[in-house]
Parts: sequence; structure tokens; C-alpha cells
Amino acid sequence: MGSERLIIFDTTLRDGEQSPGASMTRDEKVRIARQLERLRVDVIEAGFAAASNGDFESVQAIARAVKNSTVCSLSRANDRDISRSAEALKDASRARIHTFIATSPLHMEKKLRMSPEEVLEQAKRSVRFARNLLDDIEFSAEDGYRSEPDFLARVVEAVIAEGATTINIPDTVGYGIPELYGNFIKNLRERVPNSDKAIWSVHCHNDLGMAVANSLAGVKIGGARQVECTINGLGERAGNCALEEVVMAIKTRRDYFNLDVNIATEHIVASSRMVSQITGFVVQPNKAVVGANAFAHASGIHQDGVLKARDTYEIMRAEDVGWAANKIVLGKLSGRNAFKQRLQELGVALESEAAINTAFASFKELADRKSEIFDEDILALVQMEGAKTAKDIFDFVSLSQHSETGEPPHAEVVFQHQGQEVKVCALGNGPVDACFKAIESHVNSGAEMLLFSINAISTSPESQGEVTVRLQRAGRVVNGVGADPDIVVASAKAYLNALNRLFTLSESVAAQDGAAI
Amino acid sequence: MGSERLIIFDTTLRDGEQSPGASMTRDEKVRIARQLERLRVDVIEAGFAAASNGDFESVQAIARAVKNSTVCSLSRANDRDISRSAEALKDASRARIHTFIATSPLHMEKKLRMSPEEVLEQAKRSVRFARNLLDDIEFSAEDGYRSEPDFLARVVEAVIAEGATTINIPDTVGYGIPELYGNFIKNLRERVPNSDKAIWSVHCHNDLGMAVANSLAGVKIGGARQVECTINGLGERAGNCALEEVVMAIKTRRDYFNLDVNIATEHIVASSRMVSQITGFVVQPNKAVVGANAFAHASGIHQDGVLKARDTYEIMRAEDVGWAANKIVLGKLSGRNAFKQRLQELGVALESEAAINTAFASFKELADRKSEIFDEDILALVQMEGAKTAKDIFDFVSLSQHSETGEPPHAEVVFQHQGQEVKVCALGNGPVDACFKAIESHVNSGAEMLLFSINAISTSPESQGEVTVRLQRAGRVVNGVGADPDIVVASAKAYLNALNRLFTLSESVAAQDGAAI
Repeated sequence: MGSERLIIFDTTLRDGEQSPGASMTRDEKVRIARQLERLRVDVIEAGFAAASNGDFESVQAIARAVKNSTVCSLSRANDRDISRSAEALKDASRARIHTFIATSPLHMEKKLRMSPEEVLEQAKRSVRFARNLLDDIEFSAEDGYRSEPDFLARVVEAVIAEGATTINIPDTVGYGIPELYGNFIKNLRERVPNSDKAIWSVHCHNDLGMAVANSLAGVKIGGARQVECTINGLGERAGNCALEEVVMAIKTRRDYFNLDVNIATEHIVASSRMVSQITGFVVQPNKAVVGANAFAHASGIHQDGVLKARDTYEIMRAEDVGWAANKIVLGKLSGRNAFKQRLQELGVALESEAAINTAFASFKELADRKSEIFDEDILALVQMEGAKTAKDIFDFVSLSQHSETGEPPHAEVVFQHQGQEVKVCALGNGPVDACFKAIESHVNSGAEMLLFSINAISTSPESQGEVTVRLQRAGRVVNGVGADPDIVVASAKAYLNALNRLFTLSESVAAQDGAAI
Repeated sequence: MGSERLIIFDTTLRDGEQSPGASMTRDEKVRIARQLERLRVDVIEAGFAAASNGDFESVQAIARAVKNSTVCSLSRANDRDISRSAEALKDASRARIHTFIATSPLHMEKKLRMSPEEVLEQAKRSVRFARNLLDDIEFSAEDGYRSEPDFLARVVEAVIAEGATTINIPDTVGYGIPELYGNFIKNLRERVPNSDKAIWSVHCHNDLGMAVANSLAGVKIGGARQVECTINGLGERAGNCALEEVVMAIKTRRDYFNLDVNIATEHIVASSRMVSQITGFVVQPNKAVVGANAFAHASGIHQDGVLKARDTYEIMRAEDVGWAANKIVLGKLSGRNAFKQRLQELGVALESEAAINTAFASFKELADRKSEIFDEDILALVQMEGAKTAKDIFDFVSLSQHSETGEPPHAEVVFQHQGQEVKVCALGNGPVDACFKAIESHVNSGAEMLLFSINAISTSPESQGEVTVRLQRAGRVVNGVGADPDIVVASAKAYLNALNRLFTLSESVAAQDGAAI
């Protein structure tokens, strides 16, 4: 007997982006969306079109760029939000409107200040409105798992009658236990007379560390056929169900689930790295599937018995999720064709020959300073090029710094400010602090630093440093990234990148505050 | 009706330490053990006494230092291992011997090359031998979850008859699904006639992201009353069940589990930080309970609606697990008494007045360079002091470095090598690389760098950098740590610290290779 399909709905770009500090630019979102398409994700939730003009433009750009996945936009249960989603999705090959309203007593009373009957009416009205614009409509009952089952069943029955094609029952606060959550979905489906007219979906948060197990119980016990998840489990608080874990569990335990997923698992590790690099959210070494230690023999450690242990201890193959040994792929003498070919092999699609030329120039400049170029270096370089936008206000030019025990560290930074070259210098607690102080002596952003972290891009002794700087000003949080063999330079680049985002990224914090499914 | 107790068995120091790169010194292990005692962990697995002299000494030191928790040592199922464990535990207030043998067809055939009958006999003989030395004996069936149930039931019945008081059924390879693993334990218990003579235990690995859910299913469905877990879910590959998650799930969903745990949850965050700092394993921001973003309002971000959202979205209170706002606690003018008092408030117990004096001197030196001293700075400082041992071969003295766009970065490092001052210099790709090359020009360790990472200790603009360097030589992997406001200095200190460990840490890789429960 053939097995059924499980739909993978990725919300890295919507729920994931809502993590404090994970905001992304439009171009970064398009890059991730393309990678999700390569992964063969069924549905990409591209954003929340009504939240701001910037969000609208991101959803629109993704709808235009992606051909093989359905592109979805979130909307509160009102006509304006839904119209904005439909408009942003106009050019998509396949589009879905996702609308939501809270159904739990606590959320209806404290957040919405609405009676259950008002919520029911608004849910119906919104789905009816959306269904007139598009065929593929998902309805989410926010805080569904803490809702009163009789009321929730009435809401779900009504929105299916209005034409909702997917019904999502989130565990918004991460309160579920597999057995309980699975049975909640099962009982609810049994209680809704027209339940077979829609695909049921699960969306679990990870506050108690059980988002994956809860999602899978919703599938196995509850009969859900869509899982909402994010790369690396990114998301507010403890995050969402991790795509890589739920997919590999379905694949590895096919004997139990008997379900097919369409995911091209060999792109999982590259997707994880891209999301981590763009958001600045590190992946811990002991993270399942995508952590550096997840596969014993992929951690760069060669000890007796590992090959023996591999058979005995590993239930998945590292190659199947895209782990490969670091290879020295290019060097100083590599030409443009070799570079271009490697980009293709890495799945990087640059928009134009001009973009390839710019990236190649950066590559040559890097190869002059670093003899061995790894795949990670190339990905970082393309990422850094991609992080630059036409709107950039600040641009790094050069730097000189010195520190010596017993004397205050000193830095001199040269950068362009709207085309004008500025030279600044300052003392600091360390050379990086001195650079930041030098830049701020001219910019005076008033931003507060929330995070500063550096990771080596490869494990070679002459690895590049990749720096993430997280700044906050007036409630808005941005991450800047920078890479260079010299970590002081990488830090200055990351700081300027963060300032560029602080001054250009669209403001969507207030609207997002209302969208915590 | 009163609820039952769930025993929390922490194996951070044994299974956690087996993660490639997580080796700890004896002093570090004792510090973590003291913290676990403060957390009120029921059983502390202190190590694998027979693995090496270093492991033996660590178990012995912990057995002497810990008063309120049971201290446990792992042993293969042979007389020598078990005798070494008993000897190392001689001075413990409460001691447990933990012995294991593989029971799955794959492991018996490929790893042990023994027949099932031979395994059964060896298990019985070992438990009998152990029981003559101590009363508290745990038996683990390695790869238990993939074992043939009839055979496993025979082994378990036999070892209970020989006097085993705890029976642990690990999911060694992280293959379980909550429903299946819970029922596996339940069926096994029903099949073992003397099952009520022992406490049943679960030990789950996280390869599919379900270690916590599987452990809890083993408790709820299977009736286990001990959970084996680690701080931050540390452990080989994707790690073990995370202590903080399993404990908070039991507490938060008491309505479902109806079990008591003895854990002092307010020490969870401090324990997480200590383990992360000592091992150099970062905790990702979206990690449940202990990640920087786990509680919306603890992430340092203040936006409208967070207080409202706190009621609506949080199922645990951040204070209950030990999150508190960063406070500027001390400055340049703070005296020795204020410093000593703050150490006490932070739960840091320094061994002697001399140790306090040394730490205070470092504090004053830091306060000269950094105007605001946070709790994190104090903890890092004590950690750095603690990382030094009498056996240290290399000691940082001073550094001077310079980098400038267009010129190769340059560093000059002065350090003591067995009491002799050495001055070295080198060029590199960046100032950190130049420092490492300078040090290696004298040391010639031949070590390979596996990891280099920097995290800011606090989020203040003048935060210190905390660097982790992971080196490998001849199959042995060590982490070095260093902290300083100047990240180049922190990097040099971390590199020298790693070299000290490379040359002094006891060799236990080969023996550990056989101990993957």
C-alpha cells in the first residue's frame, strides 16, 4: 500500500525572523527562500505582508523568485491584512494566504478583548474574504492547544465550511506533551464533522524541549499531514520545531510513520549554515543533525574505533544530510571559471555576470592573504557580498590597530559615509572596542550592543573570523555580519554592516508583536 | 495521595565529557560536581574510574568533595573496572557502582564478539561481584532499546536477582520515538517477574531531537523512576537528554506527571553557564530553558507589549530557573569584602583565603581596564583562575600586536615556558593567527586547530572577550579558554591554556571508546 505525503511548511522567514535579533533584509530572505526551494520545502511562509512596507516587499520578492514551492503570507483575521497578503503574492506560481486568530480563553480575553462569539464571527468572515481572493487558505487557531475543545471545534467546522483548506492547531506556548497533544488533535478532528475537507497541520514551540516529538505525535496520533517548522529550530523564545529533526525522524523511522516527505535532505547542512550565518544565531555543537558533533566522524576527529563505531552507533548517514569533509577547493592561482564552477557546485546562484565578477574580485583579494580557500570561505564571501545593498550608508575602507600589554589599545578606521571618506581614531579596552569607539565618534548612533560573537569559518589554523554584532536602538534590533582573516577588521565590517541595517531596515516590530502563533 | 519521587541522575561528567572536545581537568570536574550538588541532583555520575589514572583521581576527588548527592562511577562488566570504581568511591558519603554490557544483537556481535549466553553470564557475574563491594548497584544494558526483548528480560531478571538496585535501559543511538520507547520499557517491566525489586531508569540520546520526550515517555508510560541526563544536553553526537528541560517539564506539567523532583531549579542557569564555560560548548540562543532567548523578557530587549506578552506566552517564570538581569555589581573602588560577598552570592566557593586573594588581585587588575564589572566577568575571572594548575607549563606574560590594511599583521608574544621567559614574534593572516604562529615557533606542538570561537562575556559595549581554542594531537582533543577585554590577548591566553592541557591532561580516549551507553 502506498504511503501518504507529509507536507513540510517552513516558517523560518516568518516565525523564525520574529526571534529577537533575527531580522533579515529582503535580499537575505530571498536568498534563504531560494535555498528552501532547493531543499524542496512544500510551503514557504515568506513573511507577514501587512506588518510593514519592508515585509510586503520581501513577500513580493520571494513570490516572484520562487517557482516550485507554494509561497505563503501571514495575516491577522482582518480584510486589510488579507488584502495585503494577496497583493504581495500576486505573482507567485503557487500562493497561500494564512490567517489566524486566538481561540484560547486567556488570549481572547487578555489580548483580543473579544468574546468567543465575536472571535468565531471574525474567523468566518476572514476566511470567506480570503477565499474570494485565493484558493489555498490556511487558518490557524492561535494558542489552539490551550483552547476549550468544544469552542475550537465550532470555529474549525465554521472556517472549513467557509473554504479553509488547511487547519493549523498551534501549541503557541510550547506547553504540549506528545501523548496529550497528539490526542488533542485526534479528538478535535473526530469532533469536527467536515474535518476531512481540510489538511490538518501542527505548529509546536519548543519551550519544554519537545517541539519535534509533539509535532510527530500530532502526525502519528492526531492524523495531521502538515508540519510547520524552521531551519535550526529558529523562532521566538526556545524556537519552533526544527525542520532537519522532524524530516530525519520521518525518514529514519519510516517503519513507524509510513509517510513520504519531499525534502532533498542533502541540502540540510547548507541550509542550516546559511540561516545561522545570516541571522548570527549559532548552532550548538550537540544540536541534532546539523550540530558540528552530530555525526562522530564529521567532527574532524579521527580516533581508533570511529569507523567501527560508525556502523554501531549511527542511525543516519552524514552524507544524507549534506555533511562532507572540508576540502581545500581553491587557491591563489584559481581562475574565474574554477570559481564560478565551485559556486554552482555549492548551489550559489549569483544574479548576473557583474555579481560574479565582484565576488571573484573579493575572492582574489582573500586568496592573496589566505593560502587555502575552503567552501566555507566562499560561502562567507558570497554572503558578505550579498549583505551589501545599494542603500548602504557606511562602507569599510581600511583599518590600522595596535595593542600592547600595559598601554591602552588604539585603532584608526577609515570608512565611507554616503560616499565621503571619514578617518577616525580612538582608544578602547581592546582593539575591537577601540574600533567601535572610533566609528561611533563619527556616527553617534546611540545604539546599545546586545551581542558580539566571533566564529572561525573553517577549522584551518589560518581560518577567517566571522563576526556578528547585534545592536539595538529604540526597540529595533539588528545583526551585522563581517568576515575577514583579521578578526579586528571582521569586527569593524560587522559593526558598519549593523549600522547600515539600523538605518535602513524597515520597522516591523510593533505589528509582529501581535503575530505570535 | 502523595506523589512519587523521580530520581535525577546527572552524567555531564561522564557521558557529557565523552563529547569530542569536552574533556575537563580534575579541578573543573570537582567544580561542576559541587554545582550539581547545589542543584540537588540525586546521583552524580563522576566518571569512569578505570579509564585512566586521571579519571580515577577525578572520581576520587568528587567522592571526597560531595556530601549530599550519591556519587557514581561507570565500569565495564569486569572485575577490574568494578574494583577500580569501588576504590575511587571509598570516601563517598553515598556511592553507586554503575556497570554495563551491550545486549543488542549488533553490539554483541560487532563490538563484544560474544554470544548472548556469554553476555548474560558476564552481566550476572559482574553484578554479583559489585554487590559484594557496595549496596547501590546500577546495571545498564547498552543499546538496550535495540535489544531482543525476551533476551533482555532474561538479563534484567538475572541481574536483579544478583542484587542490582537500578536497571537502566538506554536508547544508545537515539533511535526512539516516545510512544515506542515508553511501551518498550512498560512491556519489559511486565515481562520481568522481579521488576519491582529495582528502580527503572531511562537514558536517551538526542539524534532525532527527541531525547527529552523519549525519557518522559519512559517515565509516564514505562514507569521508570530515574532519568539520566546532562546539563545543556551535553554528550556524544547530538548529546543526551537535557537536565534543565526534563526537570522543567516535570515541574510545569505536574498535572500530567504527578511526580516530585528534588532539583533546586534556581541554580539551573548558573549550572548551564558553568558547563558551557568549562567545556567551550556554546548554548544556542533558542535553546529551551537556558538559551539567551528562552524567555522573551530576559533577552535584554524591551519592547511594547512584552509585559503583556509575558502573562500570555510564558509557561515558566525566568526567575525560577535562575535568570536575573545583568547587574553592574562591582567597580574599581570595590573592596575585598564586597568582592568576597559577591562571590558567595554567586555560589562560588574558593578553597582558601589565598585563592580569594589571587582572584581579588585579578579583579583589581581587570577593574583598572574595565569600568563596569558584571557577574559574568567575576565568574569568568574565577573560571580562568581555576583553569590554571600547578602543573602549568606555559604562562602568558605580555603581548604586542599590530595590523594595518595592506600590510601583514604582526604579533610579539612573551610567555613563560617552565619558568623561563620566551619572547617570540611572527606574521600571520590576522593578529590572532600571528600570535598563534609566534607561540608555535617556539613550542612546535604539531597540534591541529579544530575550533576557535569568541563570545562576549557581557553585552556591555566594553565587554570582555572569552575565547575557546580546541586543539587536537594524536587523537587527543583539548579545549583551552582565555578571557580578556582585548580579544587578541584572550586568544593568546586560550591557546597557551590549550597547550597546557594538551601536555598534561591524562589520556583516556581509548578506554572511553568502549563506554558509549
